[in-house]
Amino acid sequence: MADETGRLTRLNPQLEITHLKPEKRVGLVVVLTGYGKGKTSSALGMVVRACGHGMKVCMLQFMKGDIFTGEWEAVKKLNCDIEIIPTGMGFCGIQGNPYPHPVHREAAQRALNIARERINSGKYDLVVLDEINNAIHLKLVDLEQVIDLVKNKPTLTHLVLTGRDATPEIIELADTVSEVKEITHAYRKGIEPQPGVDF
Amino acid sequence: MADETGRLTRLNPQLEITHLKPEKRVGLVVVLTGYGKGKTSSALGMVVRACGHGMKVCMLQFMKGDIFTGEWEAVKKLNCDIEIIPTGMGFCGIQGNPYPHPVHREAAQRALNIARERINSGKYDLVVLDEINNAIHLKLVDLEQVIDLVKNKPTLTHLVLTGRDATPEIIELADTVSEVKEITHAYRKGIEPQPGVDF
Repeated sequence: MADETGRLTRLNPQLEITHLKPEKRVGLVVVLTGYGKGKTSSALGMVVRACGHGMKVCMLQFMKGDIFTGEWEAVKKLNCDIEIIPTGMGFCGIQGNPYPHPVHREAAQRALNIARERINSGKYDLVVLDEINNAIHLKLVDLEQVIDLVKNKPTLTHLVLTGRDATPEIIELADTVSEVKEITHAYRKGIEPQPGVDF
Repeated sequence: MADETGRLTRLNPQLEITHLKPEKRVGLVVVLTGYGKGKTSSALGMVVRACGHGMKVCMLQFMKGDIFTGEWEAVKKLNCDIEIIPTGMGFCGIQGNPYPHPVHREAAQRALNIARERINSGKYDLVVLDEINNAIHLKLVDLEQVIDLVKNKPTLTHLVLTGRDATPEIIELADTVSEVKEITHAYRKGIEPQPGVDF
């Protein structure tokens, strides 16, 4: 099952395919915020698209780090120049998490240093800062640090920032901003997180 | 560049990893609707997660089919049992599209037959019906056909339905529904679609 290889099957192979080529290449700043499902998933979708274009990608996952999620295994199965870096010590402040705030902040600061180094190298086509809005909200990184990172990124590097509670300052800096609103969620019916969809 | 392989680098390798195992496995119905960026991307993210769990996946793309998008190439680079099937004749009704409504409807109906066959086989862990809400809205498929598909899916198959203008009836059937609202979008500044982010 898992050793089969993904494939594309066009239902209408006679159809001519257009390859879009923007006259001007732009490194976009994309923000995915809100309380509904589909922010990290959406960032992962862009990672996949970038892979299809042969781009170099780095996804840094703030906050998370202690719960297995499918993309950790999937990235190894992608024959692309993509790195996923879980950087958190679990969710800061969540019940059961044993680490005090300074430990979470130290991890987030180390992560931010890696992000800065990767972004400023100019070698990456797409960098995802997953849950960075949460990290700002919980004061694991400072708003000014992230603003500085966004403002000084190389022109052609796409930057994607996810997480609830994006600040107005971050939204102001972005080219594309989506708010993912929860209309309903399976957990409200008592359904536990399911593999492949929720993690 | 593109011949490197994806990798996972944990910043805190000392951290113990929890593997969530829901007591009850449920095949979820997920709807991603709204006018903002991040519906198909989000579905693609779930496809990636499912790949990480060794699941069998099929993504049928309604409407689309004539414009190259990164996931078409990426899926071939995924060492997973995943198939993407573009089924459309381009965007129905959009300026420049040469095909009359019956041609679009015929393609969508063929696609729906494939979806029905894949879903009812019970062999798939995740089936994505990308842009199906649009296809309903444009009367390429009937609402009743999709309701029938959702209501009669195997218990453990996850079904993801994307596209603007999801009907109340589809939302009512879903476990998790997100509305992706556009706060802003790069095209409003005259920025053309960019590879890796928009396609």
